[in-house]
Amino acid sequence: MVYVTRKEHFNSAHRLFRPEYSDEDNMRIFGKCSNPLWHGHNYVLMVTVKGETKPETGFVIDLKLLSRLIEEKVLQKLDHRNINLEVDFMAGKLASTENLAIGIWDQLESAIQAEGADLHSVRLEETENNMIEYFGK
Amino acid sequence: MVYVTRKEHFNSAHRLFRPEYSDEDNMRIFGKCSNPLWHGHNYVLMVTVKGETKPETGFVIDLKLLSRLIEEKVLQKLDHRNINLEVDFMAGKLASTENLAIGIWDQLESAIQAEGADLHSVRLEETENNMIEYFGK
Amino acid sequence: MVYVTRKEHFNSAHRLFRPEYSDEDNMRIFGKCSNPLWHGHNYVLMVTVKGETKPETGFVIDLKLLSRLIEEKVLQKLDHRNINLEVDFMAGKLASTENLAIGIWDQLESAIQAEGADLHSVRLEETENNMIEYFGK
Amino acid sequence: MVYVTRKEHFNSAHRLFRPEYSDEDNMRIFGKCSNPLWHGHNYVLMVTVKGETKPETGFVIDLKLLSRLIEEKVLQKLDHRNINLEVDFMAGKLASTENLAIGIWDQLESAIQAEGADLHSVRLEETENNMIEYFGK
Amino acid sequence: MVYVTRKEHFNSAHRLFRPEYSDEDNMRIFGKCSNPLWHGHNYVLMVTVKGETKPETGFVIDLKLLSRLIEEKVLQKLDHRNINLEVDFMAGKLASTENLAIGIWDQLESAIQAEGADLHSVRLEETENNMIEYFGK
Amino acid sequence: MVYVTRKEHFNSAHRLFRPEYSDEDNMRIFGKCSNPLWHGHNYVLMVTVKGETKPETGFVIDLKLLSRLIEEKVLQKLDHRNINLEVDFMAGKLASTENLAIGIWDQLESAIQAEGADLHSVRLEETENNMIEYFGK
Repeated sequence: MVYVTRKEHFNSAHRLFRPEYSDEDNMRIFGKCSNPLWHGHNYVLMVTVKGETKPETGFVIDLKLLSRLIEEKVLQKLDHRNINLEVDFMAGKLASTENLAIGIWDQLESAIQAEGADLHSVRLEETENNMIEYFGK
Repeated sequence: MVYVTRKEHFNSAHRLFRPEYSDEDNMRIFGKCSNPLWHGHNYVLMVTVKGETKPETGFVIDLKLLSRLIEEKVLQKLDHRNINLEVDFMAGKLASTENLAIGIWDQLESAIQAEGADLHSVRLEETENNMIEYFGK
Repeated sequence: MVYVTRKEHFNSAHRLFRPEYSDEDNMRIFGKCSNPLWHGHNYVLMVTVKGETKPETGFVIDLKLLSRLIEEKVLQKLDHRNINLEVDFMAGKLASTENLAIGIWDQLESAIQAEGADLHSVRLEETENNMIEYFGK
Repeated sequence: MVYVTRKEHFNSAHRLFRPEYSDEDNMRIFGKCSNPLWHGHNYVLMVTVKGETKPETGFVIDLKLLSRLIEEKVLQKLDHRNINLEVDFMAGKLASTENLAIGIWDQLESAIQAEGADLHSVRLEETENNMIEYFGK
Repeated sequence: MVYVTRKEHFNSAHRLFRPEYSDEDNMRIFGKCSNPLWHGHNYVLMVTVKGETKPETGFVIDLKLLSRLIEEKVLQKLDHRNINLEVDFMAGKLASTENLAIGIWDQLESAIQAEGADLHSVRLEETENNMIEYFGK
Repeated sequence: MVYVTRKEHFNSAHRLFRPEYSDEDNMRIFGKCSNPLWHGHNYVLMVTVKGETKPETGFVIDLKLLSRLIEEKVLQKLDHRNINLEVDFMAGKLASTENLAIGIWDQLESAIQAEGADLHSVRLEETENNMIEYFGK
């Protein structure tokens, strides 16, 4: 069993808030992250896949293929987008990095399985000091 | 003459567009950076100050003081803000990294001079691959 | 279950030695790290917490709160301090990165539990090439 | 149980191909990585060792010793070398990062055990976006 | 005058040697970098362009265009190539990082001028510890 | 004219204070950096040398030689040392990063000239956020 990680980047706007709360409550709970006029991040995404190496290629998964899957399933939906308003798999959810990592997992899991490997973890860095990792389930 | 650099970070939303252009023209010129629903970045700001070292402290400028000046004059206006809508010194300007670096220079120049040193450059990284540097004038 | 990591920094002096050994023995065992006049490091600390996301916030733990806990329980004791002479939880221990990581775990474990999450790991980088990770127990 | 990681670097040339395939097939499967005139990388190697801390030293393993083991068993064979043509433990294998990580594991496992600790993982970064991790077996 | 930098990467094989020297002389002068079976690097390239910001765009130069110019003029010739054997603008030259930076400058200078800006510097990192910068002339 | 940079590291203890000031004055001026029991840093040193490339080697200066000069003239005096108490070229000076960069320049200037190149700058990073650059004179 070998673990393969591909790192990708996307830049998005978001806001942490719950629509049923008042602006004051959102500010109290989420601080400046609840700014109604948005802020944004350069997200760093690390997708780790595990499996046996294929004898023909020496690969667990072709990293160019993994990169293309992430591009199609995740980056095209998130990059230069507003996470709260434009991303189908985040609709109705709090746009926390935790929920975003879980959402990205759900976008990728079956597509990677179809390539004969298993998604192991989704690691998402919102800033260089704040990171989330999700292992599924 | 010694050069002192302080690195700071801020996270903001912005959009590249000109209000007098159509959405199609903005998309053609600025691409996905013109998304009307915003996107954002983790900006990295490096402020370089030059001067002689003071004999009492061995400093060109106290870096805690420089950090506080940047916090007051720049970060409080930009961090977790919408650059197009909320930042007074960017009002009516295209929110390009170039214009943002020039705007930050103007916020800092006299405050640093008042501390007996000279602003040398403002370096602003929008992503890890795209950087702007401005030396004044 | 989601894993949340907060990265922090502190700068300290230390020395590797055992008081019951001679200076020559300390030098033979610990090399230049046993210099009796101290040396120091910019330590990088990564604290990983695990738990379920709370529905009200989408957070496992509020990262501002986690950062404050680390500040109060760890950084105030270590930053700009002499690890051998000034840090209560390291008194009488060899100031190795291993022991320091274990000490930091003990400072944080119950405070994080009191916030409804579990400490998963303490990762401590002494230099960019030397790192320790501790998972408790 | 504490985990200790040492980071090292080496610079090598390699080529991804199978000698029994035609040049066209190698190009179709491995793309530009199959260039018959070679290309190369700055590999980043992270070796993680686990064990109990020794009471005399506070160490799981002396990091200078671990670095020397990696130098002798791995770097002297790989650094500034052609992985396909000059590295004994890669002879007859596809020079993928996966296979290289497994090969490095086999070079190190018993030497680390002889020092009273256990090899936990070999992490190998071929580029800043592509990484492999191997945990043995 | 504003300075804009674009960072790019390429992975190549090379060898430092002079064909008129013996293998022993090449080894004495260039050390392991003269290995006749090649080695390679992940080169990091930073191209800095200077000029006035255009009022229509707020840009000195569109960074997507700059990236495309570097791709066409530099990366397509160097990436996954053997610098000694396959790169036209390095033919007959010692494949030192210095000469490579000068060669890259010559590939880019007029193309950038045709876009209404000036090439300011080419910075080339062969490893994280060894860097070259060239300002032309 | 080409510019060549070598990056090196050293880990030292220091303290910012003036012996003629009281402890209270030192604390007021230098804050926690004046802790009488020391603190320390992982300093990052970048030495930039300029000159013409030599036709025999394609080098401005052999980087292995430059690294050895820095090792002999600078690192052996500073690494794992107390800057205030053990470094001859810092005796009687405030141990600020500014003064340390100037001191390092003086250690290196003539040795680099003896190799047929010129010292251009000494860049010293005390933390990832605080950097000093000195160009001589």
